[in-house]
Amino acid sequence: MPATIPESHLDLFQKKSLAYLATVLKNGSVQVNPVWCDFEDGRVIVNSVKGRQKDINMRRNPSVTLCIADPENSFRYLEVRGEVEEITESGADAMIDRMAKRYMDVDTYPFHAPDQIRVNFLIRPDTVRANG
Amino acid sequence: MPATIPESHLDLFQKKSLAYLATVLKNGSVQVNPVWCDFEDGRVIVNSVKGRQKDINMRRNPSVTLCIADPENSFRYLEVRGEVEEITESGADAMIDRMAKRYMDVDTYPFHAPDQIRVNFLIRPDTVRANG
Repeated sequence: MPATIPESHLDLFQKKSLAYLATVLKNGSVQVNPVWCDFEDGRVIVNSVKGRQKDINMRRNPSVTLCIADPENSFRYLEVRGEVEEITESGADAMIDRMAKRYMDVDTYPFHAPDQIRVNFLIRPDTVRANG
Repeated sequence: MPATIPESHLDLFQKKSLAYLATVLKNGSVQVNPVWCDFEDGRVIVNSVKGRQKDINMRRNPSVTLCIADPENSFRYLEVRGEVEEITESGADAMIDRMAKRYMDVDTYPFHAPDQIRVNFLIRPDTVRANG
C-alpha cells in the first residue's frame, strides 16, 4: 500500500516549494539537489534531463527521499520516502512548462535546450512524515 | 584532504539559507530534513537534540550530505558530502542561540526545553559542488 500525503500538506504542491531530492550514487553516498515537484494521482513527480547524475542514480537505485518545506514556514514540511515507479519521456516537456508556470510565473520553461531529453520520474510514496 | 567551500558561496552561511541534511537510517533508507547550519574553521555545523532520529543516524553512520540553496535564487546552491567528525554538547546551546539570531532575528532561541540536550555536529566536507 502506498502512503498518502495528508490533506493538511497538499498545499505544498501548489506553492513555490522546492523539493530537496536525495538519490543514491553508485558508491553509496547520497546526492541532494533542489528540484521542482508536482503531485498527481497519489504520486510525486520530479522532472529532469536524461543523463544527469540524478537520472543515472534513479535508474540504478529507485529509492529516493524528498523533503518539501513551506517557503513561508520551514518548520512546516513533508518528508516523502518512496520508489521511482515509472520513468517516462511522455509528457515531460509539458510538465516542465507546467512547473515553470508555478515556480517562475512564465508560460514556457525558459531553459529548454533542443539537445536535452526531459524525463518525468513518478514516485510512489511509501513513508510520509508531515511536520508542523 | 578535506574539501574547501568556494569563497563564491560562503555567503550562504550568512543568509537565512536552510540546509537540507540527508542522514542514513539503520535500514539504509535516507532521511532528509531542513536544518539550520553554520560554518567555522572549514567545517559545517549542524545543531540538534540528543536522541532525535538524525542524532541517532549520525552516531551510527557519520556520512552525511547537505544541500544549501540561496533563498533568493535556488539555482545557486552548495552540495556538501562529508563526515561528522565530532559530536559535542560543548557550545551547542550558544550555537543554537547564534543560529536563532541569524535565522529568526532573536537573541535567544525561543524553543529551548530544559529536558533537551542540544548537540553540535561538526562536519568535514569531503566533496563540494557549487552551482550557479
